[in-house]
This record gives sequence, structure tokens and C-alpha cells, in this order.
Amino acid sequence: MAVNFASDNVSGASPKIVAALANAAKGGALPYGADDWTARVEAKCAEIFEAEVVVFPVATGTAANALALAALTPPHGAIYCHPGSHAYVDECGAPEFYSGGAKMVIVDGPHGKLAAGDLAALLADARPHGVHNVRPVALTISQATEAGTIYNADELAALAEVARGHGMGVHMDGARFANALVHQGLSPADTTWRCGVDVMSFGATKNGALAAEAVIFFRPELASEFGERRKRGGHLLSKQRFVSAQLDAYLTDDMWLANARAANCAAARLAEGLAALDGAQLIHPVEANEVFATLPGPVIDALEADGFGFYRMGGEGVIRLVTSFNTADAEVDDFLAATKRHTQAA
Amino acid sequence: MAVNFASDNVSGASPKIVAALANAAKGGALPYGADDWTARVEAKCAEIFEAEVVVFPVATGTAANALALAALTPPHGAIYCHPGSHAYVDECGAPEFYSGGAKMVIVDGPHGKLAAGDLAALLADARPHGVHNVRPVALTISQATEAGTIYNADELAALAEVARGHGMGVHMDGARFANALVHQGLSPADTTWRCGVDVMSFGATKNGALAAEAVIFFRPELASEFGERRKRGGHLLSKQRFVSAQLDAYLTDDMWLANARAANCAAARLAEGLAALDGAQLIHPVEANEVFATLPGPVIDALEADGFGFYRMGGEGVIRLVTSFNTADAEVDDFLAATKRHTQAA
Amino acid sequence: MAVNFASDNVSGASPKIVAALANAAKGGALPYGADDWTARVEAKCAEIFEAEVVVFPVATGTAANALALAALTPPHGAIYCHPGSHAYVDECGAPEFYSGGAKMVIVDGPHGKLAAGDLAALLADARPHGVHNVRPVALTISQATEAGTIYNADELAALAEVARGHGMGVHMDGARFANALVHQGLSPADTTWRCGVDVMSFGATKNGALAAEAVIFFRPELASEFGERRKRGGHLLSKQRFVSAQLDAYLTDDMWLANARAANCAAARLAEGLAALDGAQLIHPVEANEVFATLPGPVIDALEADGFGFYRMGGEGVIRLVTSFNTADAEVDDFLAATKRHTQAA
Amino acid sequence: MAVNFASDNVSGASPKIVAALANAAKGGALPYGADDWTARVEAKCAEIFEAEVVVFPVATGTAANALALAALTPPHGAIYCHPGSHAYVDECGAPEFYSGGAKMVIVDGPHGKLAAGDLAALLADARPHGVHNVRPVALTISQATEAGTIYNADELAALAEVARGHGMGVHMDGARFANALVHQGLSPADTTWRCGVDVMSFGATKNGALAAEAVIFFRPELASEFGERRKRGGHLLSKQRFVSAQLDAYLTDDMWLANARAANCAAARLAEGLAALDGAQLIHPVEANEVFATLPGPVIDALEADGFGFYRMGGEGVIRLVTSFNTADAEVDDFLAATKRHTQAA
Repeated sequence: MAVNFASDNVSGASPKIVAALANAAKGGALPYGADDWTARVEAKCAEIFEAEVVVFPVATGTAANALALAALTPPHGAIYCHPGSHAYVDECGAPEFYSGGAKMVIVDGPHGKLAAGDLAALLADARPHGVHNVRPVALTISQATEAGTIYNADELAALAEVARGHGMGVHMDGARFANALVHQGLSPADTTWRCGVDVMSFGATKNGALAAEAVIFFRPELASEFGERRKRGGHLLSKQRFVSAQLDAYLTDDMWLANARAANCAAARLAEGLAALDGAQLIHPVEANEVFATLPGPVIDALEADGFGFYRMGGEGVIRLVTSFNTADAEVDDFLAATKRHTQAA
Repeated sequence: MAVNFASDNVSGASPKIVAALANAAKGGALPYGADDWTARVEAKCAEIFEAEVVVFPVATGTAANALALAALTPPHGAIYCHPGSHAYVDECGAPEFYSGGAKMVIVDGPHGKLAAGDLAALLADARPHGVHNVRPVALTISQATEAGTIYNADELAALAEVARGHGMGVHMDGARFANALVHQGLSPADTTWRCGVDVMSFGATKNGALAAEAVIFFRPELASEFGERRKRGGHLLSKQRFVSAQLDAYLTDDMWLANARAANCAAARLAEGLAALDGAQLIHPVEANEVFATLPGPVIDALEADGFGFYRMGGEGVIRLVTSFNTADAEVDDFLAATKRHTQAA
Repeated sequence: MAVNFASDNVSGASPKIVAALANAAKGGALPYGADDWTARVEAKCAEIFEAEVVVFPVATGTAANALALAALTPPHGAIYCHPGSHAYVDECGAPEFYSGGAKMVIVDGPHGKLAAGDLAALLADARPHGVHNVRPVALTISQATEAGTIYNADELAALAEVARGHGMGVHMDGARFANALVHQGLSPADTTWRCGVDVMSFGATKNGALAAEAVIFFRPELASEFGERRKRGGHLLSKQRFVSAQLDAYLTDDMWLANARAANCAAARLAEGLAALDGAQLIHPVEANEVFATLPGPVIDALEADGFGFYRMGGEGVIRLVTSFNTADAEVDDFLAATKRHTQAA
Repeated sequence: MAVNFASDNVSGASPKIVAALANAAKGGALPYGADDWTARVEAKCAEIFEAEVVVFPVATGTAANALALAALTPPHGAIYCHPGSHAYVDECGAPEFYSGGAKMVIVDGPHGKLAAGDLAALLADARPHGVHNVRPVALTISQATEAGTIYNADELAALAEVARGHGMGVHMDGARFANALVHQGLSPADTTWRCGVDVMSFGATKNGALAAEAVIFFRPELASEFGERRKRGGHLLSKQRFVSAQLDAYLTDDMWLANARAANCAAARLAEGLAALDGAQLIHPVEANEVFATLPGPVIDALEADGFGFYRMGGEGVIRLVTSFNTADAEVDDFLAATKRHTQAA
């Protein structure tokens, strides 16, 4: 496959994760999560997050988000989110499905982030008519965001405080949590539950796994019905050890952090290169492993003709480039060289 | 792990499937099913089933069943099924969830099978009050059944004819389809769509895969909304190639049939051995890879104390033993020897 | 309209209820239940049932049942019921809809009644596989039943005790509660919450109102989300006083009991007359206002040709006759005379 | 009750409608809509709208909206609407509930109206990721709007054309359709289906009925599942004639138009009076029976202290005044006099 920055799910999988899978496949194990890998993953999460946690492995990020939000949301609830968030825009209504028809209320903000003040303003008048209005029950925050940006701990804490003040739960979509974490340089605890996050979707698929995510509850009492909901949604794997084994390897020897650092470095290299080009412009701060840039239309067309993979946003000269754990410097440099060539020719 | 006949999902995975996964993990690929493995699986299914099919890989059997049934069932629909069927009793209401609240109507029958005559009798007076009653829209048949028995082609055709006569769609839960097929000695087509099956859950997980099932539509027009439903349910994997690669290997060189034959042989060996023992009694015909037997309570307790894994049914001296693709003759023989020993001691 | 025993919803409305409506229509009132009639209904229910109650007027019995059951039932819950119950068979899946896809599990029994022992037996093995199985959460009992029979207080208490022992809530479908009550000769409290009923659908429509039912919670804490659910279901009437005014009149001066007595008397007269005829046979005890009888097919045809209204059950010579608050003796006698004539001619 | 402009559902009911109800209550009738009143309502709607229509009476506007939208909307659909619309903001998620969890997408615009251009712009990029995004399936327009404004026929046609161009259905929330119609001076057909409306909620409750709305399908093929959905939602009344009788009287001798004219006149009188006062300001054009005005805080407080009923919007000095079919000129004049008095005192 040619150089492809369309998404971090284009990449393959980390060899150690594949090896762990192969190893787990050799013998038998009790099904439905009553296996050693699953127990180990929960223990590792407890250690990493310095907290008593309840952990549910699932195979997709959409499942993780929708199931986690459903744990916070009755059918007549409202989930507050950024309009660009994956849960709002790219999950075909999974949160609505799993919650039994809740409403997602959008709070816009620049660079994929919603601001505590804007949330507070909306919530101040969210329910003038009592039972006639849906009840604000949950806030979901993406970390990193879909724009490749990152909330700092103060921003998170401020958001969670507003939510908490209205009796709402706080969910973090951490499909790219590792990428955010290594950028922040904080402990996992300091940027999740210590900021007020109640439950998170902890991603691995985009960062080196084949298909593995975990829903992590920092308030175990919220998980009381999760087992039924997961089964009912078809997300309890019979051979669950094969998801858990991925997560187990992922969390071993800080592989998850190393993978994220590699992806972030590649994005930074890409961003730096593009910023230096006339005609290219970065449109969001590059804080994780995504780069959003404007380029002249003919340059974009030429790059596509070259065989480079990336994603066109909207259609007005904006492209998205996503790096991954195994992006090679040479791939970045090839892309930059081609862009430079086409830009100069334009 | 000790000898364990609790379920076929206790076993590991076929080495060739693991190898295929490892191979697929090496390079990049387009996400969400736009990959070569997925295309190949659909092509192989078309060839195997001698039909134009639409195929959707998913990770669990519950997802396959619930999504397939939802394609046939509006919220006010009724799904007819055997009370022992997995979809009715062991999926925590997944068909109800995915259909938006349909009703499952049970049609009992011996040995896990429902009979065309009983179905016809129920349907004859299913809707005396029009819109006051849910509308019969789907029949789901498990092949092999949860009792380890198999519908022959005439039984299937008779059931489907009744359903068709009432405008209902026909779904087959083929979590153990391979085990049924090798027992029947018919072509896949002859025991599915040629008998009137519209859509099936085609299982691989229980028969050597890690986590891989496929929903196969024999009437492609029924699949028009499946893509949205699968995504909305969180069952569209971003790196879908890792499910498809399992199916691809599974369908290569008839591995799926060889695995099923091995499992069925082990079950037959187990059944034969048990039948020869005083005090043991088989309670269902052993046609696939499951054996249901009564044993004296103390014998069951002693086997459990020995470390053998199996499943107690109900609690009245009935146990379920499930063999799998890699059950060794020695494991069967060990179990039989121990049972004989305990039976004689009793 | 000719003599019609098809249902008690064929009849018109009690003049005093109509007068109350007309009176309420004269002036303005605050909407959505913030009116005097609604407050009065709740106070009267508290007095009649000798309990602190929370009362929600709605316009239909299906809404009352489905909303009340939803208050007890998460989506992964199971509701136990008789297969002949209105909620199971004649509400097009409303309980499934309002609960978000719960499963209704049937417990059969003669004369429309389910027995505590049968319920206990089913529940004893209801959830062998934990999250794989739906969770038993509610029992719904019809009083009077769809077969026109009545549970005595001991039967109710025994059923509720079984349910309570499994952590389940108890709902009573009292669409014909008044008819049951006057038969029993007990206080409303003694046959509801003192027997273990948590929430009931209290019917008025079939017994003289135009369209008025009330959901009455005997355990107010169960009602915490009811307001939202009712609104979300479209069952919060803006001019709710027009439902409440009906209930208010219905509960004034024991009109509800008088109406029920009249209906029951008419049914008894009908039953007595039929029992005396050769060729007719009552198939359920006649305890409320419904009579089920077998008659020769030609007699049924002839009665229909005469213009009498009634309901054919199943189609094997069984008819259902329902009397109402304003059934005249002459109507009953006309029907009996015609039946006698046709029976003798046959 | 004191003068109350809080809502048009505060008012009582038209005497002729009450009389029709009383009349219908005298005799028996077949239940569930198989009665003469219901047939007559459908015939009258066909005549009034000059079209073959299918009509379903229900008791509330929320039921009408949610059921009508559900006829257009699969669970993975998106319904486009104004953020101030009743269906979006004041029905506690009823459209989400009835559709099985669809998403409502908001298109803002001044004075409660959404513009065809804004809708088109949103739709142009509504589904870049196929099954990852919900599918635009329905547009709902309120006529009159929640701001008391009215779409003219050109605006409606333009909106419907955009929707139609994207394969979407068009719903009109006509809770105050009569008020809009008499303002426009067009035929009912010219401002509904001839503009592209597929199905409407036709309101009567706010305009003189007790509890009566009708869902009117201009494309009968869309109604194929409506009967089941209505029953399942608990909105099929057993004694449906009592809703139909209200609609029947409402549509007789143009009472509906006369009532609406009276309400609109009262609003115009109110608006004119307020506009003439210093310190008061109308914030939306007054085209139907609602007046939105800013007044100094102390004036609002004083009016409230006087006992006048109205609704405070948001809390920044904006009040809403709604007139109804039986608002007396004297009520308007009293309010205006008091406002003048308080304004001058301020």
C-alpha cells in the first residue's frame, strides 16, 4: 500500500500485540471474560489510573462510546457534545440507539473543543419547562479531539465542574487518549478522574491494536447495568480473551505510550514541514497525531494522483492527515517533498 | 487448562486463522471493509452458496443474529422461534433491542426443534385483532440447534414454506452451521436458500476463529439498511480486515468443514462411550458437536472434582458436553474413563 | 345501534361524566395537570386506597399499562404475564416499546389466571447465565382478567410474594378493576397494595368514562421518571383537566362502583340464562362483566344475522359477551330469547 | 380564572364541540375508529384539502408529531427542524422515542423560521461518510411557528423542494394550522400538499377542542404502518368517536376558521396596543395568535402581581402572550390598560 495518511486505522497492528494474540490462541480459556487476560487488563488499568476501576473490553470505539454514554443516560436524557465529535457525527446515531433515544445537544467551539463557559450558558436555560424538555444528564468530551487538539487539565476540570453542577455525568472519548496523554505529560489519573471524568472509552485500535477498546468506569456504581447492556448490544465476545490479550500487550512495558509518541512525532514532523511551505496553512494546532491543512486545490489533486492517501474535509481545500504508530519518517518526507514540488509548480 | 467440554468457545483458534491474522497485520489497508479480505470473503461465500449474496462480517454471533433479524423485523413485528434458541434465551434481548422492541413468540418442540405444523397452527390465529396484535414477520431457526440436533432439508423447507405463506422472512442462526452441514452431507445452497432461508448468521468463532461471524443475505434487497444498522450498533470494525481475514482463512481449503468434522467426530465418540455406560443416558440425538446426557448426581460431582469442564443444565442431573475442532481423542477417552470409574463406584 | 355485547367500550358514557366535562369546558385552567380536577383526583385516590399515592391520568389503557410497566422495567428486563393478558396480546407490543425492548415471558394458567406456583417454578431457573439472560423485573396481573375472572386476595398476595422474592415489581392492569372490586367485596387497599401491588392501571373508560385511565403508584419512589416518560410518549394532555374531570366524576358518590355493579349484574343475568340453555356452555366462571360461552355454530350465525353484536373467539364456537354500566335487562333478555329460539331450531 | 395569556391551552372548549361530545356519548358505537364520526372526519378532511387523505385522530399534539415523523424516519434517520420548534424542544424527545432513536438536526433562523437556503447548505454536506452518518430523511416545519410567525406558500415550497431533492419527507406541525391559514388567506391545499407537505399534524386542541388532533397523510402510502405504531404508542382510543366527534364539530360550518380568526384578531389587538406603548417592543411579527414583546422588568412583575397570566421567555424581559378562540376584547383591553399604567409608573 502506498503512503496513506487517511486515518490511523489504515495502519496494521503492533507485532507484539499480534504475538500476544497468537499466544492466547494456543490454549483454551473460559469464555465471556472469565479469563486471565481480562483480569490482567483490569488490574493494569487500576494501576495505571491509580484507582479502583471496572473495565469492559469491547471491539469498537463506537461500542465503547455508545455503551458508556448509555450508562449515564436515560431515554429522556440529553448528552452535551461538540458538533464535530465522533459520537455526534460519525457513529450513525449509536448513542441515541444505546440510550433508547436520548438527544445529543451540541456546543460548538473552535478547534474541536467546547468551552466550559459555553456549556454553562446553555445549561442555565436548558430545562425551562420541566418534563417537556429532555434532562441534561451527560457531557462527552473527546481527548484528543477530532481536530487533533487536546484539552488541558484545567479545561477538563472546568467542563466537568459545570456538568457536575447540573447533576450530569462526564464521559471521555479516548479513542486517541494515548496521543493526548503523551502530549500533556500528565499522569493518566490527573487528566481523567481527578478532573472529574466518570467513565471513559479507552482506545487501542487506532494506536496499534487490531480491534480493542475498553470502557473504564472510575465510578464503579455507574457500571451496574453495563454487563447486560453490553451483552444485549452483541458486544460481549465469547472468546473475549482475544480482545483482552491485545489490551494486555498494549499496556505492557508502556507500549501504548511509545506508540502514541511515535505517531505524534510523525504528525509534528508533517506539520513542521507543511508550515514551512508557501501555500500551505495549518488550521488547527497540531497536538496529537492529526494535521489539518489548507492546500491549493491543484496541489491536493496532484498529491492524490501521486497515490498519497489522505482525507478531504468539506471540499474547500482542507485535508486531514493522520499519522500512526508505525509511520516512517521517510513516508512523511516523501509526502512533504511531493507537496513542495506541486506547490512550486502551481 | 484441564479437559473442558463446557462450550466450543473454550477452545483456542486454528493456527491457520492466527497466521492469516498475523499476515494481515503486517501492512496497511483501507478501513471499514474496503479491503481485499472482505471482498474475498464475499466472493467465497457466493461461490460456496452458489448464489449472489451480500455479506457483512461482524465479531459476535449475537450481533449477527440481532442485526439479521432486525433487517426482517419492524418494531411492531413478531419473531417466531424455539424457546431454547440462543436468540430467545441467551442474548439478553438483543433481537428486541435491535428491532426496536419486537416480540419473540415461542414455538416449542422436542430436541430443540420447532415443527412446521406447530408453527402453522400458531400463525393461523396470530392476528385476530389487526393492529392490536404484533405482526408475524420473521422465523428464526437454529442450525444446528441448541440441543445439538439438525433440521433436515425437508423440515427446513416445510418451515420456510409456512413462514413464506404468511409473508414472513426466514433467518437461520448458523453459529454451528458447519457442524450441521457436514452431518447432512448436502451442499450449502441445498440446506439454506434453496430451502427458503433469506438471511443467515454464518458462524466461525465456535469452529476455530477468534471472533468472526458473517451475516449472509441470500436476498440482497433485504440488506438495504444493514450498513447503517451495523454501524449504529457499533459493529462496523474500523480495521475490519482482521475479522475478514479470519473468515477468509476459515473458508480456504475447506478448513471450516474439516474443523466441523473433527468436532462432530469427537462428539460422536463421546456419545458412543456414554451410551455404553450403565447410568448414563443421552437425551437428544447427537448430530453435531453437542452431547446432552443424564448422569447420577454423585458422578457429575465427582467429574467436576476431577477438573473436567462441562455445563450443568437445569440442575437435574443433565449435563452438556461440547466438543470442538481441536478436541483430542485422548480428552474424550479420559472423560469416558473417569465417568465409567465414577459410575461403577456409585 | 342494535344490542351489542362485543365490548364494554361499545357503550356510551355516563351522563354525570359528560356533565362534568361540559362544566370543566366552561372556564380556563392551567394546562398539563396543574388544575383543580387533577389535584382532586389524586386526593380521592389517596382516600379510596387509604395510602399516599401518586396519580397520573392518561387517555388510554394501553398507555397506562405500558407506562406503568416501563417504570418497573429496564430494556434488559423481563415482564412475566399471562399469555391471554391484554398487555401481552392486544397492545401491539406497547410494553416492549415503552420499556425499550423488554421481553414478556408468559406463564399460562386456566381461566386467564396465572398461579403463584407456576410463576415460582419459572423464576427458579430464569437466569442461569447471568447477563446472557434478561432479568426478571416485573409481574403484571389483570384484575379482572381477560377471561372475566378474578384473583382473590390470597392469590394476589401469593403472586406478589413470589415476585417480591425475586426483586420484581408488581403491576396490576385494572382496566376492569371496579368490576373485580365489587365482586370481591373487599376494600380497594386490601386487594391492591396490601397484597403487594406496586403500581396499577386504574380504568374508567370501559366503565362509563369517555377516555380516562389513571396510573396509580403505591410506591411513589417508582414514579420518579414517569413524568418524562408520559410526556415523551405523547400522553401528557395539554388540557389534562378534561381527563381528570372524568375521573373526578367517576370517583364521586361511588359512581364507579355503581356502574361496575350494573355491568356485573347484567353479565350474571346473561350467564344464568345461557347456562339454562341446552347447547350452551359457559367456559369460564362469570365473575365480572364478561361471559364466555360455547354455542352451536349455526346459532352463532343466526344471532349475528339478527344483528346482535358479540365477539367470536378463535373460531370454534366460542363467543365473548361483555356487558357494561348501561346494559339494560331488556337487552339481555332479547339476546337470551333469540339464543333460545335458535338453539331449539337447531 | 383571571385573564390568562399563558397559552391557548388555558382556554376551555367551544360549546358546539362540547355539545357534539355529549351527543356522541348518548349511544353505542363500534370502537377503535370503526364509527361514523371518524369516517366523517376523514371525508371532511378530503373535501377541505381537496385530496385523497388518510386521517388518524389522536388526543395530543406531541403524539401527532412524533407518530407522523416516525412514519418518515428510520432509527438511523435525521429530522431537520428549527431549534425553537415544539418537536425539538418541548416534547421531551418524543420524535426520538417514536422513531427508535433518530437524530434531530437543527437549522436556526430568525422569527422561528428556517430558510430553504440554510437547509440546502446543511444538506449539501450532510453525509460525507455514508453509513457513518445518519441519513437525512425528514423535514418538519411548524405552521404557525412557535414564534407566532407564518411561512408563506413560496417559503414552504422552497423548503419542500430542497427536502424532496434529498429524498426527504416533509412534515408540517399544524398545532396552530388554522391560525396560519386564516392569516394567509389561501386554500388548505395550496399551503400544504401543493407546497410539498407529505403529512401534517392538524391541531384542534389549542383552537377550541378538548383534546383532539389529527394526523393527515397526503401521501397515503406513507401511512402503511401507522395503525400499528399508533396502537403500540397507546394512542388508539377505544372510544375513538369521542376524539372524532370533536374534530367533526370543529370542521363543521367552518368553526375552526372562525375560532382561529377570533384568536388572531385578539392577538392583533394586543400587538397594536403594545406597539403603541413606550417601553414595549414586539420582537416577532404578529401573524397568528401569539405576541412576543419586551417590557421593562418591573412592568412584567407588576402585571404578574395584578394576576395576569403570561409566559416569561428566557428571563430577559421577554414575555409571550397567547390569545385563543374565546379571548374577549375586554381581556385584551384590561391587559393593555394595566401595562400602560405600569409603564408610565416605571
